[in-house]
Amino acid sequence: MRIDLNADVGESYGAYNYGDDAGVLGSVSSANIACGFHAGDPGVMRATVALALDRGVSIGAHPGLPDLEGFGRREMRVSPREAEDMVAYQVGALAAIAAAQGASLRHVKPHGALYNMAARDEALAAAIARAVAAVDGSLVLFGLSGSPLIHARKRAGLRVASEAFPDRAYAPDGSLAARGTPGAVVTATDEVVARALGMVTQQAVTAIDGVRVPLSADTLCVHGDTPGAAALARALRAGLQAASIEVKAP
Amino acid sequence: MRIDLNADVGESYGAYNYGDDAGVLGSVSSANIACGFHAGDPGVMRATVALALDRGVSIGAHPGLPDLEGFGRREMRVSPREAEDMVAYQVGALAAIAAAQGASLRHVKPHGALYNMAARDEALAAAIARAVAAVDGSLVLFGLSGSPLIHARKRAGLRVASEAFPDRAYAPDGSLAARGTPGAVVTATDEVVARALGMVTQQAVTAIDGVRVPLSADTLCVHGDTPGAAALARALRAGLQAASIEVKAP
Amino acid sequence: MRIDLNADVGESYGAYNYGDDAGVLGSVSSANIACGFHAGDPGVMRATVALALDRGVSIGAHPGLPDLEGFGRREMRVSPREAEDMVAYQVGALAAIAAAQGASLRHVKPHGALYNMAARDEALAAAIARAVAAVDGSLVLFGLSGSPLIHARKRAGLRVASEAFPDRAYAPDGSLAARGTPGAVVTATDEVVARALGMVTQQAVTAIDGVRVPLSADTLCVHGDTPGAAALARALRAGLQAASIEVKAP
Amino acid sequence: MRIDLNADVGESYGAYNYGDDAGVLGSVSSANIACGFHAGDPGVMRATVALALDRGVSIGAHPGLPDLEGFGRREMRVSPREAEDMVAYQVGALAAIAAAQGASLRHVKPHGALYNMAARDEALAAAIARAVAAVDGSLVLFGLSGSPLIHARKRAGLRVASEAFPDRAYAPDGSLAARGTPGAVVTATDEVVARALGMVTQQAVTAIDGVRVPLSADTLCVHGDTPGAAALARALRAGLQAASIEVKAP
Repeated sequence: MRIDLNADVGESYGAYNYGDDAGVLGSVSSANIACGFHAGDPGVMRATVALALDRGVSIGAHPGLPDLEGFGRREMRVSPREAEDMVAYQVGALAAIAAAQGASLRHVKPHGALYNMAARDEALAAAIARAVAAVDGSLVLFGLSGSPLIHARKRAGLRVASEAFPDRAYAPDGSLAARGTPGAVVTATDEVVARALGMVTQQAVTAIDGVRVPLSADTLCVHGDTPGAAALARALRAGLQAASIEVKAP
Repeated sequence: MRIDLNADVGESYGAYNYGDDAGVLGSVSSANIACGFHAGDPGVMRATVALALDRGVSIGAHPGLPDLEGFGRREMRVSPREAEDMVAYQVGALAAIAAAQGASLRHVKPHGALYNMAARDEALAAAIARAVAAVDGSLVLFGLSGSPLIHARKRAGLRVASEAFPDRAYAPDGSLAARGTPGAVVTATDEVVARALGMVTQQAVTAIDGVRVPLSADTLCVHGDTPGAAALARALRAGLQAASIEVKAP
Repeated sequence: MRIDLNADVGESYGAYNYGDDAGVLGSVSSANIACGFHAGDPGVMRATVALALDRGVSIGAHPGLPDLEGFGRREMRVSPREAEDMVAYQVGALAAIAAAQGASLRHVKPHGALYNMAARDEALAAAIARAVAAVDGSLVLFGLSGSPLIHARKRAGLRVASEAFPDRAYAPDGSLAARGTPGAVVTATDEVVARALGMVTQQAVTAIDGVRVPLSADTLCVHGDTPGAAALARALRAGLQAASIEVKAP
Repeated sequence: MRIDLNADVGESYGAYNYGDDAGVLGSVSSANIACGFHAGDPGVMRATVALALDRGVSIGAHPGLPDLEGFGRREMRVSPREAEDMVAYQVGALAAIAAAQGASLRHVKPHGALYNMAARDEALAAAIARAVAAVDGSLVLFGLSGSPLIHARKRAGLRVASEAFPDRAYAPDGSLAARGTPGAVVTATDEVVARALGMVTQQAVTAIDGVRVPLSADTLCVHGDTPGAAALARALRAGLQAASIEVKAP
């Protein structure tokens, strides 16, 4: 049995530091590297690629909406065409910075509002999948388990990885409970690890109303911008390995 | 005998139109496509690649300083490291948008202040050459004839194309006369064509003080943002072809 | 009887020219000047204030969403708090540039998606009204006739001007017909002038389904970025004056 | 005897936190608040004004170059006209956000590369002074002691405050030693306090070569983005007050 652990990294910008990249990159198997639209800049991207390679972590692009001030978390009414172009642009920018270090991207995970919009909107999901397939058909697209982004891969002929969030509560329909909802974020390390084990071994999660919801979990998201992120990543990796689950990029 | 004609294109942005791309792309052999820092956006880049391919024009990246408001024309004190990263980023972004249309970049020409700074500053020129070589060693780097950007290629192992400007006056040292200088811009079509022919056939130009200055001319720049740019490009192509000079990308 | 004619101006940016400001400023009575978020930059703002003052046109701020690439036309999920802060910021920036020329702002008209969102969303409308009132309580807020932005003024204690669009078709509920709808934009000059006269003298308009819809018209919008904008503005002014309607800022 | 202590604050941006504003605002008498070009956004500006008012600290604008990625520290070749417009814009934006809280700006201090350029370039210094005077002639302009920015005030009719840097080494000509120079930054708290006392009581400083250099010190800069900034600010205030020097905004 195996699973991927992914984390968003490279979200610093200019003089601004963000997240504990060095900490989480010690434990995850896939690094989603910001590409300069919602966070990151060319120098941060280069340094983050170098750090991930040094830690033996698989690298991927983390394209976002063009909204640095909102950190890519504010939904914007972009057209599918605009989304397709902005994803191709960002994936290419990071791919070149990786190529300059002799490395290749392995996956793409949309960020924040772009990810959430693509988890609801089929045309947007299809546009993102098209962009990734057109730029490099060997890339693995990460998307919310059960969402249009995952289904869009079939038309695009892409490999996908269904993502699950052990530290987030789920609604009965398999979507994530909104961040404002009480209990939407699970903070106790033990509980996060237990949920992760259940997701991997049973491909299901208990929703916020107690109902069991099936999901597909190829990769688990570890948030890198919360206090104790590095410790949580270590605990997740240790817990998975103790259960004889290999932690490895898809 | 042959020569390349290049023009800066894809410099529109969002709701803003700039230049007569369709006009000049009918006559040039190489298109320098803006990459989103000084001008251009992902949608404009995609459309410009498509237009250039449709006209059979070779495509290249035209990376600039991160200064949309100043159109990349204001010098900024960026470090060589910053220049290297921003060039890799922009070349990669355009390369992906081209790849999504089944096309490959053939060259890179820095824009505006970045081009001018690299024509004086060896460390900056070397950084730009390193970025291009690291991203794709088959790309041809365009730089001012005789400038450090051309010399930097040797260390980087890149192919280069020495650029000359038939519509700009030259100083006796082979640099361009500053735009403010009287006579710095040559506007009469006949004269521009005659200068172009001289540059190609004699590899020399008459400087602003009347002295003959040798130069190397692998590619001639056609400005696309001046009134009558398309007509000038047509006249240049016709004049060169009438002199049995083939107009072709390097 | 009197009416205000307003136009969006100052939407150029850096090297990019946009609209026929000199043309429309010859005929309108209020200039909505972009403030650097969706369009405009400090130099364009200064020059536009100078041009409006030279033509005797009343000046106001035209704040937009922070989305230059989308020209402020893409809706973004900004919070009321964010909207309040961004409106105060932009109004203040333009007010200072006007003050440096000895002039004062007279009104504020939100731009594009911010205007449209405030025409539907009461919390957002209230936030915008609060910002304007807090910065300068003597400013007149322009908003779509009958919309929450107009009603929000009561709580904020602001003066408002209800805006009508003679070149746009109306839905039966008094909202603007979506731009995509056939017939949504009225292009014949005669018809636009006739609709303007009806709006002023009868305070009503015939909706796209033929029903008469009452509206309040204190100010009429003249689009400055369409071909023939200056001619249309002249025709509107002439038509209104021929009907003994004074064209004057509120 | 009295002196002002000033600190740069409000340099966070969106999701990015920067500096220890709450810490330093407990000890300084003037807050230089970033205005959205090199750092800061409308929400950060509003919150920083509120925090400064709460601590009884005088507020001023801290306009910078339009270079968020470089934090306004990379010199850009902007024209005096561009500098004048960007300063007016930023001062106005902050003034409105302050006015919305019932407060007024008291001073303006250019940031980073703009400050340094104005300490060398008379035309740029004059442009900045003109902008400040035109927007609000009662504002006090902060500039490096002995620099063109200070002299420019005479023509502009502005009040100025000469600034000195107790934690920075000085060159024999009264300019700041470049940050790269060994010993350019003084880190020992005792030494910084002693230098501050000397600056205030003797209006002189010992330059890096041991020579005494006269300077004018109306306000002392406390850097808020270094580790221990709040403690250093407290020590400075305590040291000054122990020497019977009142700490007060100009």
